[in-house]
Amino acid sequence: MKIGIIGGGAIGLLCASYLSQQHDITVFTRRNEQAKEIRASGIERTVRGETFRAVAHADTGVKGIFDLLIVTVKYHHLQDVLDELSTLPRQRILFLQNGMAHLLDLENWKTAHQLYIGVVEHGAMKVSDHAVAHTGIGVIKWGAFHHKEAADVRNELNETSAHFQMVYTDEWKKVLEEKLLVNVCINPLTALLHVKNGELIANASYEYMMKCAFEEAVSVLGLSEKERLWSHVVSICDKTAANQSSMLQDIVKGRQTERKAIVGYLLKQAQAQEILTPHLAFFNRSLEVLEKKQTKSFE
Amino acid sequence: MKIGIIGGGAIGLLCASYLSQQHDITVFTRRNEQAKEIRASGIERTVRGETFRAVAHADTGVKGIFDLLIVTVKYHHLQDVLDELSTLPRQRILFLQNGMAHLLDLENWKTAHQLYIGVVEHGAMKVSDHAVAHTGIGVIKWGAFHHKEAADVRNELNETSAHFQMVYTDEWKKVLEEKLLVNVCINPLTALLHVKNGELIANASYEYMMKCAFEEAVSVLGLSEKERLWSHVVSICDKTAANQSSMLQDIVKGRQTERKAIVGYLLKQAQAQEILTPHLAFFNRSLEVLEKKQTKSFE
Repeated sequence: MKIGIIGGGAIGLLCASYLSQQHDITVFTRRNEQAKEIRASGIERTVRGETFRAVAHADTGVKGIFDLLIVTVKYHHLQDVLDELSTLPRQRILFLQNGMAHLLDLENWKTAHQLYIGVVEHGAMKVSDHAVAHTGIGVIKWGAFHHKEAADVRNELNETSAHFQMVYTDEWKKVLEEKLLVNVCINPLTALLHVKNGELIANASYEYMMKCAFEEAVSVLGLSEKERLWSHVVSICDKTAANQSSMLQDIVKGRQTERKAIVGYLLKQAQAQEILTPHLAFFNRSLEVLEKKQTKSFE
Repeated sequence: MKIGIIGGGAIGLLCASYLSQQHDITVFTRRNEQAKEIRASGIERTVRGETFRAVAHADTGVKGIFDLLIVTVKYHHLQDVLDELSTLPRQRILFLQNGMAHLLDLENWKTAHQLYIGVVEHGAMKVSDHAVAHTGIGVIKWGAFHHKEAADVRNELNETSAHFQMVYTDEWKKVLEEKLLVNVCINPLTALLHVKNGELIANASYEYMMKCAFEEAVSVLGLSEKERLWSHVVSICDKTAANQSSMLQDIVKGRQTERKAIVGYLLKQAQAQEILTPHLAFFNRSLEVLEKKQTKSFE
């Protein structure tokens, strides 16, 4: 297939690198500099100590017609991308954002495009503008957002590398919700407390606070199987004990966090359902303060 | 009386200014610059639009023998002052720190001095090295820390200005505890959320979080009359709705907060009693992160 990948971050480069084995790839970046570098050097992927080089086209903006477009930008850049995509002829678009806030934007998006949603379960770290480290081998679970006609893309995407499986599922929303639940338990707390993931279960007070966030999120999402889900959250803290969460890394590096995609979505849903979520509201506001480094002036 | 006042902050200057009406005052400052300025210009106090000038001696360090020494430094400078005071001949010393952490230090202090504890209920703001604004007229409640012999100082201190009453009470510990309770409810939350005091009762989520801190603090302090105390906390938020708490101001101005004196004391007491105080532990750690601006590197 002819695949366009929008976004040159860790996930964009990872997708481009693996999918280039079977497909013709174009990476669309925001900065011309990065597009140039990808054209000149290809994309380097390091996995388990080995480095692979992939060839891809690269350009800025989004133009042309593809068999599949994959949108890998962070949620806070999504609206700009949707505006660009609105100008393109009808095509298939797969969205790989974290959190669930993008579902609300897609629901309100008046478009003829065929939309798909995917959940990335890989670990990846951008090393440079043309290099990515594949730090955790997982899968991408994906499905059709509105309609049912996914069969053609589905067959094409079945043929990917063993380290980069694309698993089709009608249950993508459940997958998204469980990932959101894990994220909202781990990300805000680790960022506010400045601790690694494992500390959330090593310290009884922090675990209690995580349980407060968990209870509120479970109630907003209307999830059953609370016991299984809590064990799942705890097991992720355990497995990733030595890791810094992405939100902690964003705060440390002075970048915008995925706060709106994760906590913001839950707060919107809570408000609509008139559920009080004090811990989530607190995390949201204090993360905002930390992000803006509002420590110099008042208002 | 010959009174020495240790510390040239808002409370130090306020005490010096009022007490100079009946007593011979020496202010001990950390910086020589400030001592010089007080000697040259006296102390200016502004209250309800009027400005009064007081004359006082001023010096650095602490030396000499006084009828009363008043220690007005913040808790995080107290240990240095105790070390200095240890070298002086036996005298009467009144401690005016916020929070309750200083009680633990004084209990462990091997000294022949006669110790008194006071609780400041004034509002005051340092305007310059020799000027203070008296923004809220209250009282100082004080009592003897260990022994009972306070009669002589008590009589002398009864003769203060109407705007600066010194009220003797055997119940000073209860007064201290109630002030600590208000502080631990309002200060950390306003600093972390970057909101004025009134917002804590205007927003249902924030009020819920304040109630969590309240419950934990009440349990650690073993206080009864929970309903009256909660109404008291809420009424303070209401009366000071437009104010920025001192902890918020400290964070905004990049200064060290009174975190250890307030939250730190409660955490120590909680640990000794094996009470879980997850919200207080969370506030303590996230304030520490905000104070240290640990947003650049990890560990």
